[in-house]
Amino acid sequence: MSEKLEQLKERLGEVADIDRAASVLSWDQQVNMPPGGNEARGQQLATLSKIAQEKFITDEVGRLIDDLKQEVNGADTDEAALVRVAARNYDKARRVPPSFIAEQAIVTSKAFEAWIEAKGKSDFSIFQPHLEKVVELVHKYISFFPPADHPYDTLLDDYEPGMKTADVKLIFDGLRPKQVKLIKAIASSKQVKDDFLFKKFNEKKLLDFSEKIITGFGYDWNRGRQDKAPHPFETTFSVNDVRITTRYESDNPLAMLFSTMHEAGHAMYEQGVNPVYDRTPLGGGTSLAVHESQSRMWENLVGRSLPFWEHYYPALKKLFPSQLDGVSLKTFYKAINKVQPSLIRVNADEATYNLHVMLRLELEIGMVDGSIAVKDLPEIWNTKMEEYLGVTPPDDASGVLQDIHWSGGAVGYFSTYALGNLVSVQLWEKINKDIRNLDDQLRKGDFSELLAWLRKNIHQHGQKYEPQQLVEKVTGSKISSGPYVRYLTKKYSEIYGL
Amino acid sequence: MSEKLEQLKERLGEVADIDRAASVLSWDQQVNMPPGGNEARGQQLATLSKIAQEKFITDEVGRLIDDLKQEVNGADTDEAALVRVAARNYDKARRVPPSFIAEQAIVTSKAFEAWIEAKGKSDFSIFQPHLEKVVELVHKYISFFPPADHPYDTLLDDYEPGMKTADVKLIFDGLRPKQVKLIKAIASSKQVKDDFLFKKFNEKKLLDFSEKIITGFGYDWNRGRQDKAPHPFETTFSVNDVRITTRYESDNPLAMLFSTMHEAGHAMYEQGVNPVYDRTPLGGGTSLAVHESQSRMWENLVGRSLPFWEHYYPALKKLFPSQLDGVSLKTFYKAINKVQPSLIRVNADEATYNLHVMLRLELEIGMVDGSIAVKDLPEIWNTKMEEYLGVTPPDDASGVLQDIHWSGGAVGYFSTYALGNLVSVQLWEKINKDIRNLDDQLRKGDFSELLAWLRKNIHQHGQKYEPQQLVEKVTGSKISSGPYVRYLTKKYSEIYGL
Repeated sequence: MSEKLEQLKERLGEVADIDRAASVLSWDQQVNMPPGGNEARGQQLATLSKIAQEKFITDEVGRLIDDLKQEVNGADTDEAALVRVAARNYDKARRVPPSFIAEQAIVTSKAFEAWIEAKGKSDFSIFQPHLEKVVELVHKYISFFPPADHPYDTLLDDYEPGMKTADVKLIFDGLRPKQVKLIKAIASSKQVKDDFLFKKFNEKKLLDFSEKIITGFGYDWNRGRQDKAPHPFETTFSVNDVRITTRYESDNPLAMLFSTMHEAGHAMYEQGVNPVYDRTPLGGGTSLAVHESQSRMWENLVGRSLPFWEHYYPALKKLFPSQLDGVSLKTFYKAINKVQPSLIRVNADEATYNLHVMLRLELEIGMVDGSIAVKDLPEIWNTKMEEYLGVTPPDDASGVLQDIHWSGGAVGYFSTYALGNLVSVQLWEKINKDIRNLDDQLRKGDFSELLAWLRKNIHQHGQKYEPQQLVEKVTGSKISSGPYVRYLTKKYSEIYGL
Repeated sequence: MSEKLEQLKERLGEVADIDRAASVLSWDQQVNMPPGGNEARGQQLATLSKIAQEKFITDEVGRLIDDLKQEVNGADTDEAALVRVAARNYDKARRVPPSFIAEQAIVTSKAFEAWIEAKGKSDFSIFQPHLEKVVELVHKYISFFPPADHPYDTLLDDYEPGMKTADVKLIFDGLRPKQVKLIKAIASSKQVKDDFLFKKFNEKKLLDFSEKIITGFGYDWNRGRQDKAPHPFETTFSVNDVRITTRYESDNPLAMLFSTMHEAGHAMYEQGVNPVYDRTPLGGGTSLAVHESQSRMWENLVGRSLPFWEHYYPALKKLFPSQLDGVSLKTFYKAINKVQPSLIRVNADEATYNLHVMLRLELEIGMVDGSIAVKDLPEIWNTKMEEYLGVTPPDDASGVLQDIHWSGGAVGYFSTYALGNLVSVQLWEKINKDIRNLDDQLRKGDFSELLAWLRKNIHQHGQKYEPQQLVEKVTGSKISSGPYVRYLTKKYSEIYGL
């Protein structure tokens, strides 16, 4: 077996190298590239992607996987996991013909341009015919795969391996009414004060402060770096080179602190994967939701908690004495946790965020099972916004056109954001059982035991376990909304005196 | 024909994309990469290099080239040039077995480590056995090719296509005695004053000033950028993304100005190649010597000229009033052109530089034809240094161990530096015939006509012509040392009152 496994690892290692090279090129495109470089860079990325695909779906790789599958059958070893994940990826890759990928590239490239224009003019009709083509392609994509319980399962599985539409629906159906109820209760309470957050804050000072925070978290600068980019993101070139980006928003300067903590959460996950998985299909995080659980944990459960700011607020106040003059720790804490139903998902607070996601999930499922026509999306969007959040978009730009995802063909992605929030709290409950004095540690700015727990229970495993399997292994149950509802209720009852 | 040509261009375009992706990874490695990233990056680069090679030397590419060769035979078209250069590269690539490349990678990797240690301890005996292996490999490499007039021809041809050892010898034999004589005359003259160059200069101000200069030259920032790196270099990701790096040396701060001009010279060459050659073997500069002619022209013939500083010196003086207090333009001009025989090639001035190169060339030819044994290199080195430059290295670190090239197997490279100097002046004489008032233009800081001339006569052609052919086409004669000797003699007679 060992010889065939070595052969498979060598082939997959080359594919991983090409994929990682493409990540370097994409990162450079967003962080450094001069404007003129765009066209050639697109061509280079297309070539790398084509070659990675060619090198992966060879008959030889298929034979190696088949032979190894029989040999490792059922074992709970790294080798068995590697073969299982390789087999899953191989099966998916072989089912989708290159001609479809080429067609999709053309359709989504045009759809992206149309979306930009439609959003600029706040006119859904410009985007509509393109989105209709995207939805056609989504149906075609689904047709390459064996029938599932629900056609949306096929899409979801690409982002959350093993997750079913029925599971997600069940989770969200339990969550929605409770979250809506909480928001209504908050809406009828006295709003917190947060005007001081929107004063002018010096960018360089904020950047240094946010880097100090994530250094404290345990982000390893010997194996990473942070740069400025138009959008914050994390990207992995190897377990020993995991980079993040940040940005300064003049109308919301402190957002930089939280987005840096968020991306560092993703990055520490990648830095913590067992290094022997590098260049294999077991490298990297196991799913988008589990990934998001890590970023949201550091951003929200740590970074928007009172104990955390008991440690860091004095330093922040010293850095910005005039902006925070007369602002107590408690007032600051409440301000950064202000709940305010709003139109735009990416700006949403912890209490309202998931509702934005649920709305999108319902629309996606409707588009996929045919119960919702693309042309009706704006109206349904606006109705649901009113129902869940009590706000109605004044135009499509701040409604159905706000997200980039669909223009790129990414249908099935959104729910992972909300699932990530749920998983983060589900893990957090378990962590607080295992580390009884966690709050005291946070109060001292000591994150070492927390990070060690995450390394041991989540990070190191990479993609060895599927997301539901991992969550169950660690917490004793599959992904559920219970902990999240408990957390939101407790936190916001205190803040808003419910 | 057109269909086969399209097929060939598609194959070669993919190979070019992979090579350019590798360049992005190398650039990142030197400019951005955190220390941890090193091992994986080496692996990624090895994979890309292997795949580019595999994709290039297929039988299909060989058949396409053979068929096309017959069809374009003898034509002076872009298509014929493309097939000719592709055929040359293909023939070279097919002759060298992958096993040799793998062996070479191992040998040079060890040789590089040994060289670092040997240089650190100034002990040639540590490097000697490794260099002996490198020389063995060089002999083996030569054995893959048909016998040439001189075995060194095979090596030279990799850097200067079409150039023969006999040509280079002839050129340098004519140059050496005149250059030695000039240096002796300078040595017996009154030395110029340059102590003010070594005061403290603010790094940021110097950087901004050097970027202002190359903006004036015509370096296109929409298609390039400059970053800091341990060593200055130029790298090309496409004709529309050509980057340079620079560094600040605290013991020689103004070196940054000249190295930025130097790298911008390389970069403007690459930015000026006919864009239709991108992704083909005709992209990029035609040879190292012609490339160096461009960098040295902007660095020396422009950047160390009196007219240039008549324009820029007032601004420099305004920027650094205390450092340049009481320093006249003439004094500054003489200082930046000071001639001082020294031990280290990379620090050598215009008048002595070529002698460093000639010494290395003689040693390389001796190693290749067997007349010089590796163990005797330090002694021969020191003897020749005394003979040519009148200085003797006190140790091997500042003698035979100073350059990285041999440790990496790069034998045949050095002469291109000196040839580049010769070509730069040969072109410069012709330019001054075509642009009669060039000095006046430089005095106004107007480089547009100069750049336009270079674009038209040199840059746009990319690799369409071999170096000797290009130089002859433009100047009427092949590479010769006459113009260079005239230039040096005139310039330094004025500066040193010879």
